[in-house]
Amino acid sequence: MKIAGAGESLLIGLIRRLQESQAGGVAGRTAAGVLKGIGDDSAVLNTPPGTSLLASTDLLVEGVHFDLSTTTAFQLGYKCITVNLSDIRGMGGTPCYLLVSLGLPGDLEFDEFKEFVRGMTTAAGSYGVTIVGGDTCRSDKGFVVSVTVLGNSLKPVFRSGARPGQELFVTGTLGDSALGLKILQSSGNIMNLEDPETMSLPELLSEPGLRQYSVRVLKRHLMPDPVMQDYPGATAMMDVSDGLLIDLDRLCRESGTGVRLEQACLPLSDALLKLAPVLGLDPFELALRGGEDYELIFAAPAGSTFENATRIGEFVDGPGIIVSSDGIVKPLKAEGYDHFL
Amino acid sequence: MKIAGAGESLLIGLIRRLQESQAGGVAGRTAAGVLKGIGDDSAVLNTPPGTSLLASTDLLVEGVHFDLSTTTAFQLGYKCITVNLSDIRGMGGTPCYLLVSLGLPGDLEFDEFKEFVRGMTTAAGSYGVTIVGGDTCRSDKGFVVSVTVLGNSLKPVFRSGARPGQELFVTGTLGDSALGLKILQSSGNIMNLEDPETMSLPELLSEPGLRQYSVRVLKRHLMPDPVMQDYPGATAMMDVSDGLLIDLDRLCRESGTGVRLEQACLPLSDALLKLAPVLGLDPFELALRGGEDYELIFAAPAGSTFENATRIGEFVDGPGIIVSSDGIVKPLKAEGYDHFL
Repeated sequence: MKIAGAGESLLIGLIRRLQESQAGGVAGRTAAGVLKGIGDDSAVLNTPPGTSLLASTDLLVEGVHFDLSTTTAFQLGYKCITVNLSDIRGMGGTPCYLLVSLGLPGDLEFDEFKEFVRGMTTAAGSYGVTIVGGDTCRSDKGFVVSVTVLGNSLKPVFRSGARPGQELFVTGTLGDSALGLKILQSSGNIMNLEDPETMSLPELLSEPGLRQYSVRVLKRHLMPDPVMQDYPGATAMMDVSDGLLIDLDRLCRESGTGVRLEQACLPLSDALLKLAPVLGLDPFELALRGGEDYELIFAAPAGSTFENATRIGEFVDGPGIIVSSDGIVKPLKAEGYDHFL
Repeated sequence: MKIAGAGESLLIGLIRRLQESQAGGVAGRTAAGVLKGIGDDSAVLNTPPGTSLLASTDLLVEGVHFDLSTTTAFQLGYKCITVNLSDIRGMGGTPCYLLVSLGLPGDLEFDEFKEFVRGMTTAAGSYGVTIVGGDTCRSDKGFVVSVTVLGNSLKPVFRSGARPGQELFVTGTLGDSALGLKILQSSGNIMNLEDPETMSLPELLSEPGLRQYSVRVLKRHLMPDPVMQDYPGATAMMDVSDGLLIDLDRLCRESGTGVRLEQACLPLSDALLKLAPVLGLDPFELALRGGEDYELIFAAPAGSTFENATRIGEFVDGPGIIVSSDGIVKPLKAEGYDHFL
């Protein structure tokens, strides 16, 4: 069945039903804090007293942000949600509610739509957030997804709080997602992450050891997860979505500082270190400019240490980013993707 | 200049600047309640203690929801905002904050974009709401606008509170917007509402008296305004966007009631009564099924009276809508626009 014959209430009903089955299958059960979810003029929500409300939104357009020939509908649904949660995590906040607007091509298969919704509700359920509203319409111009996430925080961490002398930290590892994208683009296929043996990988990566690493970096690109750990004491924070350098440059500008990066400190995964050379790619380039890492970068007073975060540099009197590598210090240009340049 | 060469920061800077000039021209001044507006991972907002948070979103796609050959960029920007505010008013709430995501064709003229933003900031300024965040990206598939509005209410009014014996009220007049759309479609032109004399109206409406009425109904369609008056005592409420019958049917379903409409009570404007016959249209049909009125319908105990709202019927044991006209009572089918049927 094509979606064109389905009717709006069937589509919205599916979202409600899959969300309820995620939440334990109690039909009509209302999530904590939701006084009115899908189905009125607006959602009606509680916010915990004493907290600030956090709100962020992303627009994803087929052909610009995603390609349904190399991502499954489930993966797309999952990623639409998690990349938005990452924005709330970039403030140190707790994501709570989602509004999802969908522009759907009339010839979309209903089963594809169902997989997309299953991806969304799986991600939402994993992180304890609830879809409370949205909008569906037909789009003759390809699949369009707009997600707004609402959250809260007792003490949000802005980009503007870094000071010279403080240290720069990053969570997890960098560059994996960018490498995953390269592999995806060179294969040009759907990658079924649930059944890695069926993946059609480029010849160079078909050896069993490399296959395992490939699955990891593909997962980082296709189904990224937000960093849910808190880092108390952080004075400035943001998530890395457009690439370490460009996002770090934004943080420095807002803080009125510069930063000296220690190239040798950049956290690189085993997968990146193994796979990048096979594909003729520089792992440091991928880590510095790759994008879509959805890790957190943050500033903290000198001498701070954190579990699951690596010190990668120091804030200095600005402006700009310099990198120290093998004893040589040089300025780096913050480059990244601009939709309009 | 085409937008493709402008760079994302120029576009976002324009939104900030036009919004500031609306707010009295104080650069960098932060609106009340906005701890962090455009420019961090998420907006950081205050919500008044004791209130519920209201959130609603709309997705508008070129070719589906609007046509830039019959609407100016300014009108489009204005309407994108006001139709969203109407959803918060449909709960009896106060709209406060906006998140705006834009998918922009690369060949859009920068001046057109500026007019669009001027429309948005004019509407936002008129109703005291602030654009606090959003997302911009390039779209090769036409102009896409997603607006999320956040508001609050001490006591939101749901669709579900109407009871048999209560009376049905509607604000303003119905059908004008639908008539405006008909005129627009038959002329196929841009209508410059600021300079009505230049409008190229269909021959039938070119007589001076009819021209004045035409301007009014075109305004209702091209630049609708939300109803800002409060109706204390309303037990159920929603805004009329898809047409009186279909929206009333939704309210009745949520409330578990039916309704008997008094056709003779439907509030019709002088403009509608004058113009519809000239164009061979039935004013009651336009009022019942037209859509995009952005008036409020609400339920209230029998005997209630309200300024600027008309009693048009009574809630009865359900289900369904019946209409009483010239002493004859008949059932009416709730029809309206479904994107997927």
